[in-house]
Amino acid sequence: MHSPGALSHDDVPQIAAAVLDRLRARSPRVHCITNAVAQNFTANVLLAAGAVPSMTLSAEEIGPFVRGASALLVNLGTLDRERREATVMAVEAATRGNVPWVLDPVFIDRSTPRAALARALIASAPKAVRLNAAEFFALSGGEPTREAMAAYARDKKIIVGLSGATDLVSDGERLSTIANGHMLMAKVTAMGCAASALVAACLAVEQDAWRATAAALTMIGVAGELAAARANGPGSFAVAIIDALYNLDGPTLMARSKVN
Amino acid sequence: MHSPGALSHDDVPQIAAAVLDRLRARSPRVHCITNAVAQNFTANVLLAAGAVPSMTLSAEEIGPFVRGASALLVNLGTLDRERREATVMAVEAATRGNVPWVLDPVFIDRSTPRAALARALIASAPKAVRLNAAEFFALSGGEPTREAMAAYARDKKIIVGLSGATDLVSDGERLSTIANGHMLMAKVTAMGCAASALVAACLAVEQDAWRATAAALTMIGVAGELAAARANGPGSFAVAIIDALYNLDGPTLMARSKVN
Amino acid sequence: MHSPGALSHDDVPQIAAAVLDRLRARSPRVHCITNAVAQNFTANVLLAAGAVPSMTLSAEEIGPFVRGASALLVNLGTLDRERREATVMAVEAATRGNVPWVLDPVFIDRSTPRAALARALIASAPKAVRLNAAEFFALSGGEPTREAMAAYARDKKIIVGLSGATDLVSDGERLSTIANGHMLMAKVTAMGCAASALVAACLAVEQDAWRATAAALTMIGVAGELAAARANGPGSFAVAIIDALYNLDGPTLMARSKVN
Repeated sequence: MHSPGALSHDDVPQIAAAVLDRLRARSPRVHCITNAVAQNFTANVLLAAGAVPSMTLSAEEIGPFVRGASALLVNLGTLDRERREATVMAVEAATRGNVPWVLDPVFIDRSTPRAALARALIASAPKAVRLNAAEFFALSGGEPTREAMAAYARDKKIIVGLSGATDLVSDGERLSTIANGHMLMAKVTAMGCAASALVAACLAVEQDAWRATAAALTMIGVAGELAAARANGPGSFAVAIIDALYNLDGPTLMARSKVN
Repeated sequence: MHSPGALSHDDVPQIAAAVLDRLRARSPRVHCITNAVAQNFTANVLLAAGAVPSMTLSAEEIGPFVRGASALLVNLGTLDRERREATVMAVEAATRGNVPWVLDPVFIDRSTPRAALARALIASAPKAVRLNAAEFFALSGGEPTREAMAAYARDKKIIVGLSGATDLVSDGERLSTIANGHMLMAKVTAMGCAASALVAACLAVEQDAWRATAAALTMIGVAGELAAARANGPGSFAVAIIDALYNLDGPTLMARSKVN
Repeated sequence: MHSPGALSHDDVPQIAAAVLDRLRARSPRVHCITNAVAQNFTANVLLAAGAVPSMTLSAEEIGPFVRGASALLVNLGTLDRERREATVMAVEAATRGNVPWVLDPVFIDRSTPRAALARALIASAPKAVRLNAAEFFALSGGEPTREAMAAYARDKKIIVGLSGATDLVSDGERLSTIANGHMLMAKVTAMGCAASALVAACLAVEQDAWRATAAALTMIGVAGELAAARANGPGSFAVAIIDALYNLDGPTLMARSKVN
């Protein structure tokens, strides 16, 4: 778990355990601009982890809702007019109020205007971006190698959290590889969106954004493995991963995480 | 259960059983203006209880949809432009068509314009308002004591249904205290929203709005306890409470309700 | 299952098995314009069956999203302004790009303007329309007899997939009757919407739209029966039908389908 001398000089499983405890103790509110498909599942994932979701998109309300939140998620799925406007206002409120935020550039590999918006949002300094390989390519123009991720993270001063068979979290210097998770996670809609919301929740209680991102992806990966052991398919898996997150504790996280 | 001479001279568990039977017999349609997070869960709660949900927000359609409905829910969560416009039209249609309606002023303690809208809507004569303590404070300006609830109910000629560890239902004279429910209910998103929808459904088959509100909160509270006995966490709890509502019957309601 | 000489000269169960295999092998992307209540469940049904959902409604994006998709679903539930505009653009893109599409005219029996829109959309040549008896009446002006269905299908050059205790699928010549399914399917919101999405997915891998429609309704009907055997009510049923679709295979389909 801990390899002294390596780029990753932090002990991610122990960090994840501490971050989870803080989530439960502080119940931070996470404001989510997220797609219509993901809203309910994301809210339940946040509640299960100990956070409190809010999700309004209304122009009249989003400023106060974001300023009073402990973190913000900006997810580009189902990017309609109102979400687009809400995103601009929310990022402005987060920047002014010093509210940490995460970008989830869903499906930017499928939509040129959405990819352009994602690039513009990166310039507004999210703490982290969580995405998959195809989305990383659309965002950065480069293959998702560890070197390209690190270079992008350094250049943009951002944490890159790349989901895949093994998740990678880079801040340009430190790299965490998280081999937890289960293939059923790819068969449940909004699983990645919920993971991004969990990154936002962890940012609310952990200032080091690399640690927060790695902690969140470790939590959801371990919860996914625990859920898979009880599931008969993606329907029961989606239910079981909420239960697993709710019942997750530090010792289980440390015992089951496969992090380097 | 029944305490002669007290303010509550009605037998709520028996009323709840009768109201549930009427829900199953009549399958009233309940039109719901509710937040995006809650729509699916709310629809399934209504179906499980025997009602039929409809949820359009379209300006072109909402008038006819409300006029033909047996009750209306107005929930202020994720209050975007379209929901705001739909609310005005729906309340107008409900008033003209004599369709009973319930207000759920979600999160008005977090948003000043939303609180102002809630107060304006109270003036349009909903039969009941279902809310939590913080929302009651934002609505009425007073602490949620039993006296303040009763005073508010009398002043506004409305039923106040206050959710909490013990639910309270007041019409200004009668007070029902419902000690059913389970703490997992607070860990599932949209549980309160769904409870409000159930209040609307009960209003469709019970003219006495105090009885309807108390019946609905008793049903969901008992269903919550039955669900908790089968659940491993909030994921399986959310599934089990739908099953429990579907399988709920009068004798179970009367045997398990803790109502004064 | 196979009755030579009858109008139905195709062997639907065997076709369904082959279509399911192709869904798994090809993972077609299905773009869905569907109502807010149905989005999450529909996405999970598509994923469980082997397809990939996308759901944006944004005017800026929907053209490219539809042109790159293998099939399109147009569902008229919660028909707000943005969905209405998205529908026009999506159908245009589908027509130009030769993307097969399905119409689900939800609740047109409850809304005159929505029924008018459905009739206009039929003129834009969807491959299939999936609906219930009341919706067929609102669409065609006639009772949903087998003759009326066949006449409508011939006249409009469309497959009519009528859901009910027994599903009927007509192209005007061939008629398939599918006696699978379970009454709990009517107690879960968005079940019909998800069935229509599955029709779209099958159209992506089967050019004969009658075969595709019959295959989809057979799959969901058989999955419903398998789910009912594990369910305690509509909550666990909704979970179990996703699991059942995910685990469904050709031999099970052929053994359990009750198709004529």
